[in-house]
Amino acid sequence: MDTFTYDLVVTNGICVTAVDVASYDIAIKDEKIVLLAPSGSLATANAKRIIDAEGGYVTPGGVDCHVHLQEPAMFGKGTSSDTYETGTRSAIAGGCTTIIGFAPQQRSEPSLLRALAETHERARDNSYCDYGFHLLMGNPSEQALAELVSLRDEEGVTSLKIYMTYAALQLRDDQILSVLLKARREHILTMIHAENGDILNWLTDQLEARDLVAPKYHSHSRPPVLEAEATNRAIALSSLIANTPILLVHVSDPGATLRIRQAQTNGQPIYAETCPQYLFLTRDDLDKPGFEGAKCVCSPPPRDKESQEVIWTGLRNGTFAVLSSDHCPFNYDDAESGKKTCITHEHPVGQFRHIPNGIPGIETRLPLVFSSRRLPLTKFVEVSSTNPAKLYGLYPRKGSLIAGVSDADIVIWYPESKRPNIVLTNEMLHHATDYTPYEGREICNWPRYTILRGRVVWDRDNGGVLGDKTFGEFLRRGTSSLNQLWETVDEQGEFDVANL
Amino acid sequence: MDTFTYDLVVTNGICVTAVDVASYDIAIKDEKIVLLAPSGSLATANAKRIIDAEGGYVTPGGVDCHVHLQEPAMFGKGTSSDTYETGTRSAIAGGCTTIIGFAPQQRSEPSLLRALAETHERARDNSYCDYGFHLLMGNPSEQALAELVSLRDEEGVTSLKIYMTYAALQLRDDQILSVLLKARREHILTMIHAENGDILNWLTDQLEARDLVAPKYHSHSRPPVLEAEATNRAIALSSLIANTPILLVHVSDPGATLRIRQAQTNGQPIYAETCPQYLFLTRDDLDKPGFEGAKCVCSPPPRDKESQEVIWTGLRNGTFAVLSSDHCPFNYDDAESGKKTCITHEHPVGQFRHIPNGIPGIETRLPLVFSSRRLPLTKFVEVSSTNPAKLYGLYPRKGSLIAGVSDADIVIWYPESKRPNIVLTNEMLHHATDYTPYEGREICNWPRYTILRGRVVWDRDNGGVLGDKTFGEFLRRGTSSLNQLWETVDEQGEFDVANL
Amino acid sequence: MDTFTYDLVVTNGICVTAVDVASYDIAIKDEKIVLLAPSGSLATANAKRIIDAEGGYVTPGGVDCHVHLQEPAMFGKGTSSDTYETGTRSAIAGGCTTIIGFAPQQRSEPSLLRALAETHERARDNSYCDYGFHLLMGNPSEQALAELVSLRDEEGVTSLKIYMTYAALQLRDDQILSVLLKARREHILTMIHAENGDILNWLTDQLEARDLVAPKYHSHSRPPVLEAEATNRAIALSSLIANTPILLVHVSDPGATLRIRQAQTNGQPIYAETCPQYLFLTRDDLDKPGFEGAKCVCSPPPRDKESQEVIWTGLRNGTFAVLSSDHCPFNYDDAESGKKTCITHEHPVGQFRHIPNGIPGIETRLPLVFSSRRLPLTKFVEVSSTNPAKLYGLYPRKGSLIAGVSDADIVIWYPESKRPNIVLTNEMLHHATDYTPYEGREICNWPRYTILRGRVVWDRDNGGVLGDKTFGEFLRRGTSSLNQLWETVDEQGEFDVANL
Amino acid sequence: MDTFTYDLVVTNGICVTAVDVASYDIAIKDEKIVLLAPSGSLATANAKRIIDAEGGYVTPGGVDCHVHLQEPAMFGKGTSSDTYETGTRSAIAGGCTTIIGFAPQQRSEPSLLRALAETHERARDNSYCDYGFHLLMGNPSEQALAELVSLRDEEGVTSLKIYMTYAALQLRDDQILSVLLKARREHILTMIHAENGDILNWLTDQLEARDLVAPKYHSHSRPPVLEAEATNRAIALSSLIANTPILLVHVSDPGATLRIRQAQTNGQPIYAETCPQYLFLTRDDLDKPGFEGAKCVCSPPPRDKESQEVIWTGLRNGTFAVLSSDHCPFNYDDAESGKKTCITHEHPVGQFRHIPNGIPGIETRLPLVFSSRRLPLTKFVEVSSTNPAKLYGLYPRKGSLIAGVSDADIVIWYPESKRPNIVLTNEMLHHATDYTPYEGREICNWPRYTILRGRVVWDRDNGGVLGDKTFGEFLRRGTSSLNQLWETVDEQGEFDVANL
Repeated sequence: MDTFTYDLVVTNGICVTAVDVASYDIAIKDEKIVLLAPSGSLATANAKRIIDAEGGYVTPGGVDCHVHLQEPAMFGKGTSSDTYETGTRSAIAGGCTTIIGFAPQQRSEPSLLRALAETHERARDNSYCDYGFHLLMGNPSEQALAELVSLRDEEGVTSLKIYMTYAALQLRDDQILSVLLKARREHILTMIHAENGDILNWLTDQLEARDLVAPKYHSHSRPPVLEAEATNRAIALSSLIANTPILLVHVSDPGATLRIRQAQTNGQPIYAETCPQYLFLTRDDLDKPGFEGAKCVCSPPPRDKESQEVIWTGLRNGTFAVLSSDHCPFNYDDAESGKKTCITHEHPVGQFRHIPNGIPGIETRLPLVFSSRRLPLTKFVEVSSTNPAKLYGLYPRKGSLIAGVSDADIVIWYPESKRPNIVLTNEMLHHATDYTPYEGREICNWPRYTILRGRVVWDRDNGGVLGDKTFGEFLRRGTSSLNQLWETVDEQGEFDVANL
Repeated sequence: MDTFTYDLVVTNGICVTAVDVASYDIAIKDEKIVLLAPSGSLATANAKRIIDAEGGYVTPGGVDCHVHLQEPAMFGKGTSSDTYETGTRSAIAGGCTTIIGFAPQQRSEPSLLRALAETHERARDNSYCDYGFHLLMGNPSEQALAELVSLRDEEGVTSLKIYMTYAALQLRDDQILSVLLKARREHILTMIHAENGDILNWLTDQLEARDLVAPKYHSHSRPPVLEAEATNRAIALSSLIANTPILLVHVSDPGATLRIRQAQTNGQPIYAETCPQYLFLTRDDLDKPGFEGAKCVCSPPPRDKESQEVIWTGLRNGTFAVLSSDHCPFNYDDAESGKKTCITHEHPVGQFRHIPNGIPGIETRLPLVFSSRRLPLTKFVEVSSTNPAKLYGLYPRKGSLIAGVSDADIVIWYPESKRPNIVLTNEMLHHATDYTPYEGREICNWPRYTILRGRVVWDRDNGGVLGDKTFGEFLRRGTSSLNQLWETVDEQGEFDVANL
Repeated sequence: MDTFTYDLVVTNGICVTAVDVASYDIAIKDEKIVLLAPSGSLATANAKRIIDAEGGYVTPGGVDCHVHLQEPAMFGKGTSSDTYETGTRSAIAGGCTTIIGFAPQQRSEPSLLRALAETHERARDNSYCDYGFHLLMGNPSEQALAELVSLRDEEGVTSLKIYMTYAALQLRDDQILSVLLKARREHILTMIHAENGDILNWLTDQLEARDLVAPKYHSHSRPPVLEAEATNRAIALSSLIANTPILLVHVSDPGATLRIRQAQTNGQPIYAETCPQYLFLTRDDLDKPGFEGAKCVCSPPPRDKESQEVIWTGLRNGTFAVLSSDHCPFNYDDAESGKKTCITHEHPVGQFRHIPNGIPGIETRLPLVFSSRRLPLTKFVEVSSTNPAKLYGLYPRKGSLIAGVSDADIVIWYPESKRPNIVLTNEMLHHATDYTPYEGREICNWPRYTILRGRVVWDRDNGGVLGDKTFGEFLRRGTSSLNQLWETVDEQGEFDVANL
Repeated sequence: MDTFTYDLVVTNGICVTAVDVASYDIAIKDEKIVLLAPSGSLATANAKRIIDAEGGYVTPGGVDCHVHLQEPAMFGKGTSSDTYETGTRSAIAGGCTTIIGFAPQQRSEPSLLRALAETHERARDNSYCDYGFHLLMGNPSEQALAELVSLRDEEGVTSLKIYMTYAALQLRDDQILSVLLKARREHILTMIHAENGDILNWLTDQLEARDLVAPKYHSHSRPPVLEAEATNRAIALSSLIANTPILLVHVSDPGATLRIRQAQTNGQPIYAETCPQYLFLTRDDLDKPGFEGAKCVCSPPPRDKESQEVIWTGLRNGTFAVLSSDHCPFNYDDAESGKKTCITHEHPVGQFRHIPNGIPGIETRLPLVFSSRRLPLTKFVEVSSTNPAKLYGLYPRKGSLIAGVSDADIVIWYPESKRPNIVLTNEMLHHATDYTPYEGREICNWPRYTILRGRVVWDRDNGGVLGDKTFGEFLRRGTSSLNQLWETVDEQGEFDVANL
């Protein structure tokens, strides 16, 4: 017989939400937060466990809404180096308690069902943290669009992602309009990878024709205008469909940022995401000797210092609603061959066209940004936890600290040090990938504890990863609640071609 | 002996903060919020009083940071029709539990001390709600600037207001720079009334020369460009002093709004306020027959419908940090003469130059905007309570619902009706002013209860105003905590003329 | 034996060029302007003919650089109702002495040669005015691109046009880049029809699915964002290829105009054209009863009144370099069937998808704009004659009044009347098309005389068209000289993918 | 008895106007251009003199519309080092045949008449080139404004200049409005020196308080925002008075340039001038050792390299209508004391507050810009000759090459060399000032001949200055004809305060 009132109490911490920074205690029972009380008042409560967080910050668990794990090779460039198991293990060690991965539909398949089923299979009983799925729509067939309703209603899958680049995935503008129209009617949020694929192809051919194939030329193949142009186009398409909400993923370029900002200034429901790689890496990182630059090959590529500053400003002034990892990991040394397949006799430092696009980052996302001290703490929580939860229909269960409502997903940080005291190395990390692009960086803080639904799944000073891969739960999501998104949009009326 | 655990419990309500909308219970003791617990869980708690808020929204008490009460006549146009007593009585009846008034320094006085002392005198034991003061700086003498430090440290007065218009108050640009420099060094927030006074004077003369003096010409004397120009100039002055934070008060014009937005896009610490008059009135309201238009004479004047939409969008997209009333009331019928002094035999419908600039609105601010349903609920709380509290150093005591930290200032709204069911009349209101510019408007909701520091001071269905004028407390304020304002600004370094 | 010193003298006129408005006399010999002399000084010169232009304006002959004549049906929607003969007859009657038509390459043809040869054939000895050709590139094959050099060198064809819309012509962005790269290297000017074809297709399908097919829905199928988006994309593509000069044809939309202006503000070599239909027609003209709206179906469609004002402003402030007719005529009543083929039993008022896109306007271009008095006279000459000549390599032979250099192409207008005194009817016009969209408009002036290479080819008061269809000459053009275009562009260096 | 047909013929040159570059011959008689004829055709004409300009460019004489000569000391900082005699001698040696100087009204004088009379006195029989005057309005009294009509009608003075800075001249915004209102009604062009004087004063005090007084701090006292702010304000004032045309003089800052451009984009009649100092000098030139920096002290100060590029782009894209010298010379070594009065024992390298603001440049303006080859030749002529003449009512007598109409003011340049071959030294120059800020620069060309009203007044290879100081004539000017300025503006209707 359980005589304890609470399963866990966090006392004496400085709690940070997207709006508040204040000291109070948190009591947890049955996986939920059940009480918020004056600081210290629960220090002697009747609880199975009491964590004294004195001097430390206490935040909602991180929500990473852009994570690629264990996806089948769609671009023929390599295989994800993380499974749901290893990826989510890495997540909790970095303070992230919820992820949203992708269920990728192949272009050859008219239906979304198999993609979803297979993704369920990969993740089930194989995740250290809670998880949901976005549909990754490779083929916006009539069938696929029709299935969205039942996937939303029965599976709680309320978002999809489309691409304006990559031969295997790129949609034409008319296809995008069909997707947006359906998404608007059914209150599905559309994520868009906005880079102009046709320009990319042409530039890649030009580079190869001049034998400019080293990793650094990845950046030349995707100059900023690729992203700014596609971003402008995506916003135009959204505006046509009665201002359908869209989320522009992984924005890196000042031009794209400005265009997004203008749309927001005009009141359009344009949302944007950025990632740590656009805050901490630059194109110079692609220009390291030999194949080393391949470690920073992602799309869009990191830009320059000035661009980083614009992205930071965009986070602070609200242009970016969410900060995700876009964790998309590939091994640097290929397990079987000892080298990535993109390295050949002819191209000993690799050929950028064949380097998989993506870097690992699920574990480093929160520590890097928290340590930077460049965001107000509330803003840090807002973009890395609360807004993702709201935007993707997980709120208020996730992303907040509400008594009786929120899951007890909590990160407790060490009492603050303003000086760097941790050197980031790949050895510290818990993914299955053989490098981190942030190797050697000095940071100031790291999650001391990660608590998922009331259970301590990460204790940095005592055992490290304590969770297990069967504890993570699949999350059926609702529609977006950020800014009362759909209510606001619906007030403006449906798309009607006769009104154009 | 008090055997009650709590003084008051609010149960079953839907609590709204600047970030959360969720059902939970709130327990109050000794003027503070002491517990947040699952919805309904405190319905049977041991409390002196339990309010069942089922179906109703529960918000932090409103914070109105722009209120003129009982100020000495500075412009020679009339006397405020509300004292601290009547103004704050009106406040609590409208859900507002904290106001910040002005301590006006006359131009002829080099010191601020008398202004502050006299304002204390007017408000002490004379306020139904908690209150603080901004300095209204009419003379930025060296002495006055020097006094700011002790006023901040000893009185908790951490903001001041200056004017770019009105003969008695208008500062030259060099004077403004001196104020900004001092304000930046001492972490005082500077509020700026941005209208170009020289242009105003010239246009007024032009209008009078053509005998265009009816109330509606107030609007002609202050066209939008007056405000846009001065706003641009204020932002320029801020940028010169190492990006000193400023708050542009009562913004009404799309041009000014756009300029503010651009500065925010660039990362400058430019904050802005708007008011209900720019959301619900237009210049047509100034053009009513006879003297009637005088009821809507305020500065800047209400604009047109399109401008209203821009202001709404600016509230939603974050351009405006705060929504205040700019309550600045004058009687329509003058008590002594039966008519305003601005009505003369020669000008039977009044002469706009002599109509006092200002309208009442302290009580209608929250109901009008809440009822409009044009802001997400969290945004409503953010701009009308949380942000004002943060911006002016009252947070976390005010503007939030934090266990053990926040004052128990709470508004409980009726369960939501989406149809208008209340007709606004001046009779309903609790100020001492003889009209409301919103007479006859139909709205959907009104605060059912207002709770100030744990005490029910307004119960619409049971007695109305229950508070008394000795209960309001003077608030010593800290520096602004919005967006970690001063930390962020200080990181950029002090003003150094050698760096220009 | 010819004892005359001059073939023709124009005396006493007020001569207008792109820079000057001043009275002087012009003497002509051997098809050239040979002398400019004080006004009246040649009134008694020894000349075969002396025209006294007292009180009238004298301008260089109009240059219309966007004219479709006698092109093979590429879109399957109908056949041009004007041949080179009838179109150029119409031109001279409207003061236009030079046109540039199109040599359309079919998509199925890898070579440009046949297109050019056939177009020569159509125009040779069949043109009342001088003429040149743009290549209309339907297939940017390697062969076609390679042929550009010899076409430039041997034929003097120094411009080409590509499309971002129309199934038969639409190029992908990578194809456009290939064209631009070649064009930049070879100093060929690229004209771009910027409307997003994919969006157009989708909207057309949507409209038809709702049976919204009447002529007015042409406008719904091409909303302004179609044009603004494609314009932005075209400018992005130009910027990628080291700022290749482009000419955006027939700009109608304020959004597109603003984007062009921004590029020009940044110093990019972006040129733009507009047409009378965007100054004098609106979308309401498409919404006339029955099939009547079809008379104004062109692409982009006419917009609204506000857009017209933006286009006028763009002409005055230099955003638009040239004003062309985009003469692209189709009969309203089909000669054979008595009805356009797009009218069927099922769709008695026509189906907009099948209405040919284009309207006649070669003859009305100059009189409409001249009469409007909305452009300074020098600006009128600049955009309708001088700039087209410079932009397309015809200057200084065409577009100017230079002694010893310019062809004697001259328009003499009636002494100015500021009141409308001419009612435009199709009967007045000299094309072979059965309507004008400007039927019934009242205008103030019309060319009294048109002089082509010294010969009076149009005398409105004495015989009308006096020229003949064998007098027009083919013009071998040089590269663009507007703003020393290529020198300026070349200074910035060649496109180098390694510099991106 | 004069048997010659022509006084002078210029043959074989490449004539450049604001629109044309073409070879033709020019014949001159009685101070006028009387004939334009085919190139070489007049090589054997019956003329008193024939100049063979083979290979050389022939341009209209330069018009410098911003020149300060022999003005009484208004700022107490020093005396102009050039008289009308020495300044205009310098002008013709640099290809400038017309200047407009200033008639400065002292603030203490309510009337403009004395200023004009005295300026006439200084210039009469004392000018090598033709000249006109702007009123420099120090006191916009009712009397002064009333006098504008007769000064326009009787003296042909059709422009005035006002200041937003300098204690002795600075006008308040309401005063500026009064000036603009009068100027609009009477078709007087208003030139505005747009720098914020109040900010300047404050910054100067700040600098001096820190003993930062060396010449380079002149730049710190006038940072770009001073100019951008005042420019924005001037444009706002213009817009209030029904879009009164204004000319913003000596624009140096990208922010100001952008603001001007926006106004032009919107169709407002905002004109702008820039000067060679903003194309060829930077703030680094102020930071030379000792007092040397004083040689580049002008207002606004030269900016940085990036700003220079923006100004060049603004010239090319039409943002700037005119390029003037703002010749405002002071000796570096003071004649009497051997040092400028601003150098004291206490401040051995001078005190920027006391350094007169202004540099010489009347003679170097055309050669520097022509040699730069950064403007198309037509643009060079447009901004340095034609537009100034039009803008200030001198056209078509000045600024053009029109037969029978234009004065025979002509510059003949050496056949073009693309390599620098002339080293600029002060010794070469013809002003009375003891330095040039461009000392040591290498340039490519210089006027070979300057011809004023048919007389060769400068022959670089044969005698240098050949003119004399009694040959220059006072020019009674008409109203501005640039872009049919007043017609266009008047169409929009008069200022009416009731329409605001």
